[in-house]
Amino acid sequence: MTSAPQHFLCEQADGIARLRLNRPDRKNPLTFDSYAELRDWFRDLPYRDDVHAVVILPNGGNFSSGGDVHDIIGPLTRMGMKDLLAFTRMTGDLVKAMLGCQKPIIAGVDGVCAGAGAIMAMASDLRICTPAAKVAFLFNRVGLAGCDMGACAILPRLIGQGRAAELLYLGRSMSAEEGLNWGFFNKLSVDLDADCLDWAARIASGPTFANAMTKTMLAQEWSMSLEQAIEAEAQAQAICMQGNDFARAYEAFAAKRKPVFEGD
Amino acid sequence: MTSAPQHFLCEQADGIARLRLNRPDRKNPLTFDSYAELRDWFRDLPYRDDVHAVVILPNGGNFSSGGDVHDIIGPLTRMGMKDLLAFTRMTGDLVKAMLGCQKPIIAGVDGVCAGAGAIMAMASDLRICTPAAKVAFLFNRVGLAGCDMGACAILPRLIGQGRAAELLYLGRSMSAEEGLNWGFFNKLSVDLDADCLDWAARIASGPTFANAMTKTMLAQEWSMSLEQAIEAEAQAQAICMQGNDFARAYEAFAAKRKPVFEGD
Amino acid sequence: MTSAPQHFLCEQADGIARLRLNRPDRKNPLTFDSYAELRDWFRDLPYRDDVHAVVILPNGGNFSSGGDVHDIIGPLTRMGMKDLLAFTRMTGDLVKAMLGCQKPIIAGVDGVCAGAGAIMAMASDLRICTPAAKVAFLFNRVGLAGCDMGACAILPRLIGQGRAAELLYLGRSMSAEEGLNWGFFNKLSVDLDADCLDWAARIASGPTFANAMTKTMLAQEWSMSLEQAIEAEAQAQAICMQGNDFARAYEAFAAKRKPVFEGD
Repeated sequence: MTSAPQHFLCEQADGIARLRLNRPDRKNPLTFDSYAELRDWFRDLPYRDDVHAVVILPNGGNFSSGGDVHDIIGPLTRMGMKDLLAFTRMTGDLVKAMLGCQKPIIAGVDGVCAGAGAIMAMASDLRICTPAAKVAFLFNRVGLAGCDMGACAILPRLIGQGRAAELLYLGRSMSAEEGLNWGFFNKLSVDLDADCLDWAARIASGPTFANAMTKTMLAQEWSMSLEQAIEAEAQAQAICMQGNDFARAYEAFAAKRKPVFEGD
Repeated sequence: MTSAPQHFLCEQADGIARLRLNRPDRKNPLTFDSYAELRDWFRDLPYRDDVHAVVILPNGGNFSSGGDVHDIIGPLTRMGMKDLLAFTRMTGDLVKAMLGCQKPIIAGVDGVCAGAGAIMAMASDLRICTPAAKVAFLFNRVGLAGCDMGACAILPRLIGQGRAAELLYLGRSMSAEEGLNWGFFNKLSVDLDADCLDWAARIASGPTFANAMTKTMLAQEWSMSLEQAIEAEAQAQAICMQGNDFARAYEAFAAKRKPVFEGD
Repeated sequence: MTSAPQHFLCEQADGIARLRLNRPDRKNPLTFDSYAELRDWFRDLPYRDDVHAVVILPNGGNFSSGGDVHDIIGPLTRMGMKDLLAFTRMTGDLVKAMLGCQKPIIAGVDGVCAGAGAIMAMASDLRICTPAAKVAFLFNRVGLAGCDMGACAILPRLIGQGRAAELLYLGRSMSAEEGLNWGFFNKLSVDLDADCLDWAARIASGPTFANAMTKTMLAQEWSMSLEQAIEAEAQAQAICMQGNDFARAYEAFAAKRKPVFEGD
């Protein structure tokens, strides 16, 4: 029941996949290899019926320090445009794959969560943090723009345009308390793994076909007009109303018992 | 001065319409009939000059429990796609009618506010709550997706993408305190009817033609580019500057008195 | 080092331009002349290499009272549509010029910040306030709609759709505390000029070419789909990765020293 990626850890049980980057001695940087393998892993998810929720957890007290300075930043400074664009598109493809994977993703954030690590937390659906979490969209500290992997589009929708601008222009860390007050984090936890797994279990035991539709539509409606969004939801929800989980919920209600969803 | 819908209560005075669902013994569920009649009532509003603000109030300590389990959910589980889509489009049409009615809507929320009831509060322009208000976008508890009547588009703009995702994936209630901190509720009240009517009276005594333009543009600009939105506002505001209420305000200011707006 | 506009104050040093409106006795209203000159000044900014951040400061304890009643509102009530539209387009062009100027703008808000003054604060990138700041989008108090200079598009992205609706329908002031809790203000300050200049200095000493790209993309991605935004960022960031500031940051890191950015 456990798939075996080469460049990150992945455990799987009860419909929940638990991911961790695996260089805790260096605060779990991303490398060319782990970027590509994560992208491929998330791209494969829509076709897998054995995973209904994903949890991304820290390792050794840190979430991720982002793109590795030696493995990634050094080589990038010597590349031509064709290769640079291939790289930025690959990192963007990881975010697209996370958004399009049809399974809710819960990021559990502890310690350092910086650069592309902050992006992976941002591109998750739900975020739980420890008091020690520090999230830094620090792109301009390495001479780059804040528009990395969707940050200028997604971060403002999570925490507001003004707060997003502050983090991107100053490159400063957002504390756990700020992240909680601003809506970046959903919950502060003193038992991070347990709380992430608890939410994942609740989601995985829910109507997973309908959950997948919720995730698809939250991304799909992003730039629709209100009229378009309402029509799109009428179609999407009508599809779900033909699903068996809807009938199961009604039957359970009529029989005064708790519904057991099967995800079809 | 009182119109008489069959499936909900509607009192009207001083340019303010007060609506209430009227099955307090069952926490005011919506039925096929009340959905359709509410949709028609809001669709008619742009043509009515006797209503300048709408207040939707609770009845018997609850706002609304949403779509009735027996009247609506049961029949839906037995329908084919054509009828399901006709239903989801009708419920979406209620939201479209509320957004397009040109009169600001204030929802006063007490007690249970769930499912389609939560949607009606969400689709209002302003929201006041009692400490007992509990708002639940509980669609996935009945086996459905969170994309119902515009929720995946509108809820993120009210409370942020992350908090909206949490409510839609977990199906849990949002408390009055959370709703206030997150920007869902505008105000916490211990005298809900009075506070709702006070805001409605302020709006109804304001420049109602200009208020209608504000409402139209808040919806219209949703998916425009910034450049498009700024041009659209230049046109919309120029229209309002030819209105008599603008001249009335200037004349009142010059005469050092309070303006009396007439809505043209 | 100081440019000399006629209708507002502008001091310039160390890559930072400090603007102030200059009628403190009347709380710094905008006039036809200052609107037009501000628009032209911001329109010129993309071509200037001597300014990397802009600070807009209060004068005499107030930020700005907005469009002058005698100079602007009186004449507008007597204009025909062609001239009205020319005016609303000019004010919209000021916001477009601020959004498109490629240099981060920090508004320092004290005292009265109303009407078009509130819009200028809203259209800035970052906002710092004193405890005495009062921001009023008071358009409907003068008989106009809330859709002025982009307010119905931009304000909801800063503070949420529900809070924006409240301010626009009621015309009431937002306090410093509210603005801070809601994400309109980034920081509360007891030494406003110093705090604004500190942030401006941090931004001006950063990678200014990359900062300009951040600002461009924050506006550009406003109405893109998520997929479009991620591709747009892949291209924009690849451009920045060919910049010299990215190499400077890497070299400084390798040499364990602080990078010195030069903005190319």
